[in-house]
Amino acid sequence: MVPQSGTNDLNQERQKASFDVRKMTYLLDGSEAFTHLKEQFMLEMERDPTFDLSRIHDMTKDEIREAVMKRVKSVLAAIQSESVEQARMRFGVISLVDPGFMTRMGVHFGLFLGALTGQGTPEQIAYWMGKGAFTLNGMIGCFAMTELGHGSNVAGLETLAVFDEENDEFVIHTPTLTATKFWIGGAGQSATHSAVFARMIVKGKCYGVKSFIVPLRDPSDFSLLPGISIGDLGPKMGRNAIDNGWIRFTHVRIPRSNMLMKHTKVSREGVVTEPPLQQLAYGALILGRVTMIMDSADIAKKALTIAIRYSAIRRQFALQPGEIEKKILDYATHQYRLMPLLATTFAMNFAGLEVTKIYDSLVAKLDSIKPSDPKIGKVLDSLKETHATAAGLKAFCTWTTLNIIEQSRQALGGHGYSSYAGLASLYQDFAVQCTWEGDNTVLTLQLGRYLISCYKEKLNGKDLPKGVAYLNRLPEILVQRCEGDPTKFENIEKAFDVVCANFVKKSFDKFNEILARGANEDAGLEGCATQRFQAAKMHSFSYLFKKFKDAIQKAPMDAKLILEKLCLLYSLFTIQENAGSFLQFNVFSSNQIEMIQNKVLELCSEIRNEAVPLVDSFGLSDYVLNSPLGRFDGDIYRHYFDKIVRNNPPAVPPYFERTMKPILSRKDLPSDRIELNE
Amino acid sequence: MVPQSGTNDLNQERQKASFDVRKMTYLLDGSEAFTHLKEQFMLEMERDPTFDLSRIHDMTKDEIREAVMKRVKSVLAAIQSESVEQARMRFGVISLVDPGFMTRMGVHFGLFLGALTGQGTPEQIAYWMGKGAFTLNGMIGCFAMTELGHGSNVAGLETLAVFDEENDEFVIHTPTLTATKFWIGGAGQSATHSAVFARMIVKGKCYGVKSFIVPLRDPSDFSLLPGISIGDLGPKMGRNAIDNGWIRFTHVRIPRSNMLMKHTKVSREGVVTEPPLQQLAYGALILGRVTMIMDSADIAKKALTIAIRYSAIRRQFALQPGEIEKKILDYATHQYRLMPLLATTFAMNFAGLEVTKIYDSLVAKLDSIKPSDPKIGKVLDSLKETHATAAGLKAFCTWTTLNIIEQSRQALGGHGYSSYAGLASLYQDFAVQCTWEGDNTVLTLQLGRYLISCYKEKLNGKDLPKGVAYLNRLPEILVQRCEGDPTKFENIEKAFDVVCANFVKKSFDKFNEILARGANEDAGLEGCATQRFQAAKMHSFSYLFKKFKDAIQKAPMDAKLILEKLCLLYSLFTIQENAGSFLQFNVFSSNQIEMIQNKVLELCSEIRNEAVPLVDSFGLSDYVLNSPLGRFDGDIYRHYFDKIVRNNPPAVPPYFERTMKPILSRKDLPSDRIELNE
Repeated sequence: MVPQSGTNDLNQERQKASFDVRKMTYLLDGSEAFTHLKEQFMLEMERDPTFDLSRIHDMTKDEIREAVMKRVKSVLAAIQSESVEQARMRFGVISLVDPGFMTRMGVHFGLFLGALTGQGTPEQIAYWMGKGAFTLNGMIGCFAMTELGHGSNVAGLETLAVFDEENDEFVIHTPTLTATKFWIGGAGQSATHSAVFARMIVKGKCYGVKSFIVPLRDPSDFSLLPGISIGDLGPKMGRNAIDNGWIRFTHVRIPRSNMLMKHTKVSREGVVTEPPLQQLAYGALILGRVTMIMDSADIAKKALTIAIRYSAIRRQFALQPGEIEKKILDYATHQYRLMPLLATTFAMNFAGLEVTKIYDSLVAKLDSIKPSDPKIGKVLDSLKETHATAAGLKAFCTWTTLNIIEQSRQALGGHGYSSYAGLASLYQDFAVQCTWEGDNTVLTLQLGRYLISCYKEKLNGKDLPKGVAYLNRLPEILVQRCEGDPTKFENIEKAFDVVCANFVKKSFDKFNEILARGANEDAGLEGCATQRFQAAKMHSFSYLFKKFKDAIQKAPMDAKLILEKLCLLYSLFTIQENAGSFLQFNVFSSNQIEMIQNKVLELCSEIRNEAVPLVDSFGLSDYVLNSPLGRFDGDIYRHYFDKIVRNNPPAVPPYFERTMKPILSRKDLPSDRIELNE
Repeated sequence: MVPQSGTNDLNQERQKASFDVRKMTYLLDGSEAFTHLKEQFMLEMERDPTFDLSRIHDMTKDEIREAVMKRVKSVLAAIQSESVEQARMRFGVISLVDPGFMTRMGVHFGLFLGALTGQGTPEQIAYWMGKGAFTLNGMIGCFAMTELGHGSNVAGLETLAVFDEENDEFVIHTPTLTATKFWIGGAGQSATHSAVFARMIVKGKCYGVKSFIVPLRDPSDFSLLPGISIGDLGPKMGRNAIDNGWIRFTHVRIPRSNMLMKHTKVSREGVVTEPPLQQLAYGALILGRVTMIMDSADIAKKALTIAIRYSAIRRQFALQPGEIEKKILDYATHQYRLMPLLATTFAMNFAGLEVTKIYDSLVAKLDSIKPSDPKIGKVLDSLKETHATAAGLKAFCTWTTLNIIEQSRQALGGHGYSSYAGLASLYQDFAVQCTWEGDNTVLTLQLGRYLISCYKEKLNGKDLPKGVAYLNRLPEILVQRCEGDPTKFENIEKAFDVVCANFVKKSFDKFNEILARGANEDAGLEGCATQRFQAAKMHSFSYLFKKFKDAIQKAPMDAKLILEKLCLLYSLFTIQENAGSFLQFNVFSSNQIEMIQNKVLELCSEIRNEAVPLVDSFGLSDYVLNSPLGRFDGDIYRHYFDKIVRNNPPAVPPYFERTMKPILSRKDLPSDRIELNE
């Protein structure tokens, strides 16, 4: 026996909150003002007819693209008068509601405009702004970096930009099949201009990859410009709202002034001036990765809101025949599946807020400092640290969230397979986050490389920045043990530090061992790649823990208890899942690991009691969730069934006469075997 | 710099094989004859125009359904004259080529026909065969078990079948919203009949859930029969070829003879006779799960063939500027991502073959044995063991393969996101395997429950069957250590046994502890659920290892070396990933774990050398792979680009005039602010 509605179930769950749900929302959003802004944006989208998402799972690729293009105009109107912070928040909400549309906006405003403003001179920026680069009135941009045969290795791009001194032009050319620009968002069907990354050749000398604005289509009739070949890449796993395309250039001529010259400059006479500090260009790479930490948290919140509300309503197996069946959230294994993921989501949220702050203050410094400033060394150290940290966090947060979505989907049982549940498309849309803005494995290795360099610098007596401060305690830290209660924050922090330091040392030793055999640095790094990966992984997990723990200090009194439990569950679960390392480096004993395992189970069951208020505090409206199975009112079966009936009115299948009738009422042909008169 | 074609790359890779690729194929398929049969089926499908899959990723749900329905006729013709073994192999190939179509066939031939033949009397079977139950000439069946509010808990189904003695009829009725039959494959648009699971009430008494044949639609015009309401569930994560639907019955009358009476019987007078051995009905549940072990291996083969061929061609980063870039398969982290998955695929393949044999011999015994036979106890023990083992293996093999697909997809970098790469749809189609035929978590807990009961039986002096023979060595086995080389098979096997035994003991102790507090058995089982889960997980991993090791004995001489490496990698990687347990139970020391970690890296690099020949030995044709990035000839960029251009001819987007022009050439409205004369 099961109740027909889960309204009572959720009401009961909501009475168990030990904290003020609304204040928790403010904490998670960063401030009360941000929560209000977020709610304003959610409401605007919900009431905007172009943002009607009720049939999003029933549309074809072409229908989705058209629907999404209609949304552009209303967002354009809104962002013209917004601050950067407001616009960032708006885009955050768009990411959550409609990831495909976010990419639609992101390729122009994030990538194209980012390339223009980050790499163009003020006059270049002004020129293209005049042509509609911010208003889209006259142009839509795309970002033509990756090629068919080249992704992570930007230095290996093949597209050519040869300077023709006589005509003061660059000639953009695609020399091979693998040089075809590929995966270019917006190129397939909608961009009129592109920021093209190409190998610059001036007077026969190659200066590496630079960027150029290349017009693609005539905005008035969308015909292709001479020398441009373009096609759409067709269907993808997700985000079909965006028209990823391929582009080939055949000796396309552009004025020299279309080369973006903020950093490297090429004069009329073909004199190339390189910038003094190449590293400063790093800054632009970081923003995307920083944003993805918070995006990971937000998408995880969406998945878990659906899964946890459903689990507090769905029932399975009765203790006695005829009794009401038990909520699946009351089963220990179900708690064990979801509660650690809930705790991890809080960790990602707080780390996301913190890293965003660090990034903002870094950018402010970078914008104001001069290369001659004596503080430049400290700022560059901080840039390197943020760059490496963001790389690792981007990788592990996106991997974690992809897993959270899939686990949430499976937690819904069969219903998780319905598109209307919303988790399938969440997975499909999110999956690409593990690859773009830097492949996760490549990024993890970058962080690992940074950790090795920190280790080396420490050996040379340098004081390391905050994020890797544990390495300042070398070598004593390597052999520390954590006696006493392993479920106390101070011991957990110590344990993470010891394990991280040991992993970094292991990588460094391996690296050195290979160098000692006479290999070069690249070979050394490759030889310790799996160790580097491990070090970066544990460093990122530990970083999340520390940021979570710090955030609790600023929480309202009544929220501290549950937040401490969540932080404890996140960290102990992480230790348990990597128990081998904690045992191997002798940080914890087998008995301590068993204490941790027991505590994890205990915490799962305690947090389960407040699981529904906790997901309520994520503050996602029914419109944003767009899943009948995650509805706030708990009447999930009714909403779900209504949606199915409304979107799929019963009818005889259109293919009945053509394909089914010939099977159901066929006259089997006689076997036509002639009886031979033998 | 990168080569334009990977043909040379693959040719070089193929020369590294230390084994005969063709003979490896025979071994993996089970016999040379099976390989020939498989190849025959693959070729038949490739040449059959209804099985053209070249536009499968470009079709809408309705187009896919129509295309798939056209395939039914040709498969119908083929299976009429095939043996059970041949048909099983054919369905295996269909699963691999077109999972959605397999479900289309499976709901009728597996579920509906399985219910009929497994639960019907000979005369009932004969009757429905006469109506077209095998030929589809006159009827298409579906299997109406799950309901909107009820999945894993079959005993909790709400649909009613009330015996009306006066009219000798059953009245089938859906009493509530949650009782709506849901997820019924084929119900949405194509079934004419259903095998309905309903709570049987005779003379006011409930006899639990039984099955009934209920006609749904008139086969001639597809109109719904009186009292039947039906709708389609709409879009799903994958397998959109199958029309899952919902059904509601409103006092639908069927003759008493439509109740399937092989086991329970209801006489004209309403006398109910229950069968002597309920357990025998278990048998039918096992087949689906056994099949899914081999299916998991097959789908993993498909994913890895694409990922490994691609990785042996794709290049990234050059050691020196201007040099040809390095194959991504030559990077240690990339090997570490894929080689353990390759090894696991071999383990699943051999376990799948073995469990299929065990199942076949079990079925033969069950078919012939009489309840009075003194050997019945042994046979039932073996039934219980196979049932439990298959449950665990189904869970961990499907979870493993889902992960293998996703890792393969990510190994393709950005290209993995293209539908044409084939991995996105592989994931989407496969994901449901973790839920249907028993939710993986529920199944794992079933195996855990069986292990606890074995432990108890052993304590009572009973000798346990082969699959759990390690428990016969209780209690000594619990405290054994594995001294010496931890990378030797005998030590690995011992280590698995010790860890498994300890996990089972831990579950049993926890179970007993709860019972000692006065709780009932259900509460005891729930109280040790996470421990049971762990025990079942390790037991399943260990089982895979043992079956793999056994299979090597039968391998051709030249294949043994590489198979031993694969088996070693599978087992050592599994130990490493669960190192915490091996350390905690004191089976291996930290030093031994470090030896294992080093050996894993070494094996990854050795197996990498033969990775391409190994996936070649899977014997999947280009047609079956249906991925330009996994092509046998290695000319992947050409095939990929050609496919994209062919399937997406360039054109101005259909929505240009309607949605883009109004953005690109808009006249912004004047702000209309009246200057007040203040």
